[in-house]
Amino acid sequence: MKIQHQAGLGAYKASGFIGDYCRLVRGTVIPYQYEVLCDRAGTEKSHVIANFENAARALRGEDTADGFYGMVFQDSDAAKWLEAAACSLANERDPELEARADELIALIASAQDEDGYLNTRFTVSDREKRWTNLLEGHELYCAGHLMEAAAAYFEATGKRTLLDVCLRNAEHIYKRFVTDGAEGYPGHPEIELALMRLYRAGGDERCLELARHFIDVRGVDPEYFRRERESRDWTVWGSDGRDSCYQQSDRPVRELKDATGHAVRAVYLYTAMADLAAELEDKELEAACRRLWESITRRRLYVTGGIGSTVHGEAFSVDFDLPSDTAYAETCASLGLMFFASRMLELDPDSRYADVMEQAFYNTVLSGMSLDGKSFFYVNPLESVPGISGKAPTHRHTLTVRPGWYACACCPPNAARTVMSFGRYAYGESSDTAYCHLYAAGEVKLSNGMEFTCETAYPFGSEIRYRVAKGGRFAVRLPHWSKKTALTLDGRAVSPEIRSGYAYLDVPGGSELTLTLDCGPRYVYASPEVPELTGKVCICAGPLVFCFEDRDNPFGALRLILDTGSKPEPCTAEGLEGIPALEVRGYALRGGDTLYSDEPPAYEPVTAKAVPYYARANRGETGMSVWRGYVRN
Amino acid sequence: MKIQHQAGLGAYKASGFIGDYCRLVRGTVIPYQYEVLCDRAGTEKSHVIANFENAARALRGEDTADGFYGMVFQDSDAAKWLEAAACSLANERDPELEARADELIALIASAQDEDGYLNTRFTVSDREKRWTNLLEGHELYCAGHLMEAAAAYFEATGKRTLLDVCLRNAEHIYKRFVTDGAEGYPGHPEIELALMRLYRAGGDERCLELARHFIDVRGVDPEYFRRERESRDWTVWGSDGRDSCYQQSDRPVRELKDATGHAVRAVYLYTAMADLAAELEDKELEAACRRLWESITRRRLYVTGGIGSTVHGEAFSVDFDLPSDTAYAETCASLGLMFFASRMLELDPDSRYADVMEQAFYNTVLSGMSLDGKSFFYVNPLESVPGISGKAPTHRHTLTVRPGWYACACCPPNAARTVMSFGRYAYGESSDTAYCHLYAAGEVKLSNGMEFTCETAYPFGSEIRYRVAKGGRFAVRLPHWSKKTALTLDGRAVSPEIRSGYAYLDVPGGSELTLTLDCGPRYVYASPEVPELTGKVCICAGPLVFCFEDRDNPFGALRLILDTGSKPEPCTAEGLEGIPALEVRGYALRGGDTLYSDEPPAYEPVTAKAVPYYARANRGETGMSVWRGYVRN
Repeated sequence: MKIQHQAGLGAYKASGFIGDYCRLVRGTVIPYQYEVLCDRAGTEKSHVIANFENAARALRGEDTADGFYGMVFQDSDAAKWLEAAACSLANERDPELEARADELIALIASAQDEDGYLNTRFTVSDREKRWTNLLEGHELYCAGHLMEAAAAYFEATGKRTLLDVCLRNAEHIYKRFVTDGAEGYPGHPEIELALMRLYRAGGDERCLELARHFIDVRGVDPEYFRRERESRDWTVWGSDGRDSCYQQSDRPVRELKDATGHAVRAVYLYTAMADLAAELEDKELEAACRRLWESITRRRLYVTGGIGSTVHGEAFSVDFDLPSDTAYAETCASLGLMFFASRMLELDPDSRYADVMEQAFYNTVLSGMSLDGKSFFYVNPLESVPGISGKAPTHRHTLTVRPGWYACACCPPNAARTVMSFGRYAYGESSDTAYCHLYAAGEVKLSNGMEFTCETAYPFGSEIRYRVAKGGRFAVRLPHWSKKTALTLDGRAVSPEIRSGYAYLDVPGGSELTLTLDCGPRYVYASPEVPELTGKVCICAGPLVFCFEDRDNPFGALRLILDTGSKPEPCTAEGLEGIPALEVRGYALRGGDTLYSDEPPAYEPVTAKAVPYYARANRGETGMSVWRGYVRN
Repeated sequence: MKIQHQAGLGAYKASGFIGDYCRLVRGTVIPYQYEVLCDRAGTEKSHVIANFENAARALRGEDTADGFYGMVFQDSDAAKWLEAAACSLANERDPELEARADELIALIASAQDEDGYLNTRFTVSDREKRWTNLLEGHELYCAGHLMEAAAAYFEATGKRTLLDVCLRNAEHIYKRFVTDGAEGYPGHPEIELALMRLYRAGGDERCLELARHFIDVRGVDPEYFRRERESRDWTVWGSDGRDSCYQQSDRPVRELKDATGHAVRAVYLYTAMADLAAELEDKELEAACRRLWESITRRRLYVTGGIGSTVHGEAFSVDFDLPSDTAYAETCASLGLMFFASRMLELDPDSRYADVMEQAFYNTVLSGMSLDGKSFFYVNPLESVPGISGKAPTHRHTLTVRPGWYACACCPPNAARTVMSFGRYAYGESSDTAYCHLYAAGEVKLSNGMEFTCETAYPFGSEIRYRVAKGGRFAVRLPHWSKKTALTLDGRAVSPEIRSGYAYLDVPGGSELTLTLDCGPRYVYASPEVPELTGKVCICAGPLVFCFEDRDNPFGALRLILDTGSKPEPCTAEGLEGIPALEVRGYALRGGDTLYSDEPPAYEPVTAKAVPYYARANRGETGMSVWRGYVRN
């Protein structure tokens, strides 16, 4: 099979819907997050920059001032910011941003020990504790994020400083775990996928070998983390390493059958597995990835593309346990699902991977960020109940208003870097083909020489027009949900080869390829295997899942029963101008004074209004619900 | 207002449905639980008898052998067993049982310190820790249960040994907390209601005064338990006392508005409050009780009479948070709700108290015990999902099969003593009136001189016949759910005075009073305020809530949609012969291969079978559901 790759960072210059989000990230999120790193945003203390400064002081033998502060993985906030900045610079020159990034990179370089070690938590102090807590210490995790940033920054600017820092760091890690044969592997996968990027950017075969080592050794000794815990007299959070499913160390990764444990850890690991499987043509690893993909998408996935349904360990639960109101569905987990999907697409261009990638992005990922880019959700439940969500003991994690920042600030910068590198997920290429996985307006210049412009109002419009400047073979995804899909070349219908949900056809330069989808609203039902959702329905349109908010439905979103005999019609929602909303007929349950009654509640006919799930919770605190009971009249 | 009291222990000799349960408790549960106390049942180690033996040894200055073992409240298992035995003896002579009880009482007496202190945990060792951990130590809780046993045993046998032990113990506690003014009050309410019983049995005014003291002082200083924790260097479970709602110490009890915290603690406290309010005609306390009753029954009560919906702290959640599948709904909490209801009835004979008392008993309480009396549930969810219940992280507590015994064995003996004293809840009396709160077949002899026999197949039949030997005024409850209720005296219709859901009429000796209820099946709907239950329905008949089990519904109870246009018809369920079952029309959702689909699942017409909730989980592991979606054809 011919492998196709993600488009390069500079290959896609966004406009349209994605362009608006990039502008938001570039204009608001990146500057704001930098202020946070510098402790100037007035939010919860970050201390990220100060940690690097203090680590550099420690290396110079100076006093470490106010020491280290924050989570053990605090360094990764700097890395994710740098990666977002790199992606931004790849598409739009910004000397001020570049200078700021260069300055941070110089600071990071000054915090690297002469043996290549780089982590402020164990450099500012506790140097003797290096590498003694792989379970919780996040040294390999932080190293991984920096490697991703380094690869991106090199790709965006051609500057090698951070790349060289990370290659030296990788060499240090390689020496420890491969050359010297030290036991262990990451408690939080990330470095494996990052090493693959560093390998491609820096060309050092040891990066590939180290990634493969961490994949191969993982779970072979399920007792490793327990023994590690017992061999040291300190912990970060008291983890004893015995819940090996949590950190995916319960068995060799090639034997994994179900997606289990901490959801972000899981999908980061699967991403690296898929990447390695493609790189090494490792069929056994590929088969494991396919099993895990099936486990997630057939049994453990929310309709919003959310994964990890339980707050306990921010983890996958058992099959079909997909509660709406207590869902965890972390923003970062859906980002990780996008990463996993994009690597599966490289192995095998099949629309079901891209469909899920898109489902995760347009719903859970975007739900993580407010429309003004200034506040963020970790947790993305499918139902918010005033008085219960955020308040009941089982619902404490389901906040109803996005906070400005978090002490554990993984999701906001993770979303920012992914929005800014959307082209990598939207477009792929092989030597002779342009893959259009997602429909993203903008200009595309691939390294195989093909060039085209994509014009579309998607996801608010259903026509996608590719004006091709330098032609070649196109592989255009046909999403499963579009019931009427038409493809024309210069206005004439074409009958392309269809394979695994992709239309393959040659498009010469100067031509215009037009894809017309059916993005009309549709009712979506869950399998009766999901007990939470029997007798319920939700509304989708194109890739968007819709929800009902009290704000638009004064009778109460949680009292609504839909009439699926009614066709949802476009409308607008107050305060969400420019975002499509849908009107639909249904019934509001009345009454409620008696807790239990022999009388069925009265059904009052109502017109209800649904808004896209990603736009939820942007107009103050409100009840919200995706899935509703239904009747069919 | 004239106060009416619970019937005495010996006033009711059960036959019929309750008689069968009494036989089960007398023949199986009491002997079995005694074997458990002696560590001869082959279940989890109990060590209760051994603890008392070792405490006695410690007091004699002897070696304490194998020391203390078990929960800090282990002593209370002996007390609850003794109380159940006492109730049994009150109705049926059993010299062997009485001898065994006397022997245990002698042992308990030998474990009492000369100052009156009595608790094996702090007598076997750690004597210096006495009274230093009211938050977790359960010394007052264990003392309370022994007082209840003492009152019952004295009432049943006239023997004073245990009564005198407990009076001495009460004197010791009185001295400490009243005379000497020591700070503090029980971390787990129980002694307050027990002191009221001891006061009535033993006549010592100090018992009443001590009960009132503990009620009055509670929550006046919400910081008490936090300070207590900080003043000692040991804990039992690490409780820091800061969650004052958990143990109802957040405010003076007269100011309580919502039922909060650990549900068993809460209703035990409210029981004592109601008891004291009646005894002292304390209107402020009575008003608080009424508010708490409303909080529970209007906003925080399962249709099965379960309370305390969350596993977090086995506690009340917020209003209308009543999940079916993750419900905690502890058996003991519903027992406590019965106690609270029975005290409210003494204040004010209103059928709504008796209705809830009955709802709790016939559903959650009986669900706690298997039909053979040999295994027990703590937790009584309204839905069991194969593969999720007992397995998902949020569902670990919702076991699908009753274990034989528990390390924390509160529920089984608590249910046993309540079944054996059913007459106290079923019947009440004032100087001239017999109150018939619940319909319980058997012979009734009240201390006011009235005597009658109740004949009924209730809850399996709807006719209740009182054959009156020695007549007087009757107050017969008319349950809210009976749509057609008829009362005849010697075959002639009567028009009694109806007040607060009770029919009041004079019945001369030699007459027969017959109450005919409508116990036919009915559909019950929840308030739309309960988000979990919008669009759902359940089936009840008389006081019984029904559920669907996979065992009777091979298409899957969790795939069932009911047709509420269909009238449930009597039938039998395999393996539950003698217990009424109901057949009803509905639809089974088919399919399920695709997690999400644009096609609604097919509805296949089915006949579904429902069995009483209390009889659930008696035929192996199975899916189960009380609330189902519905259509009306």
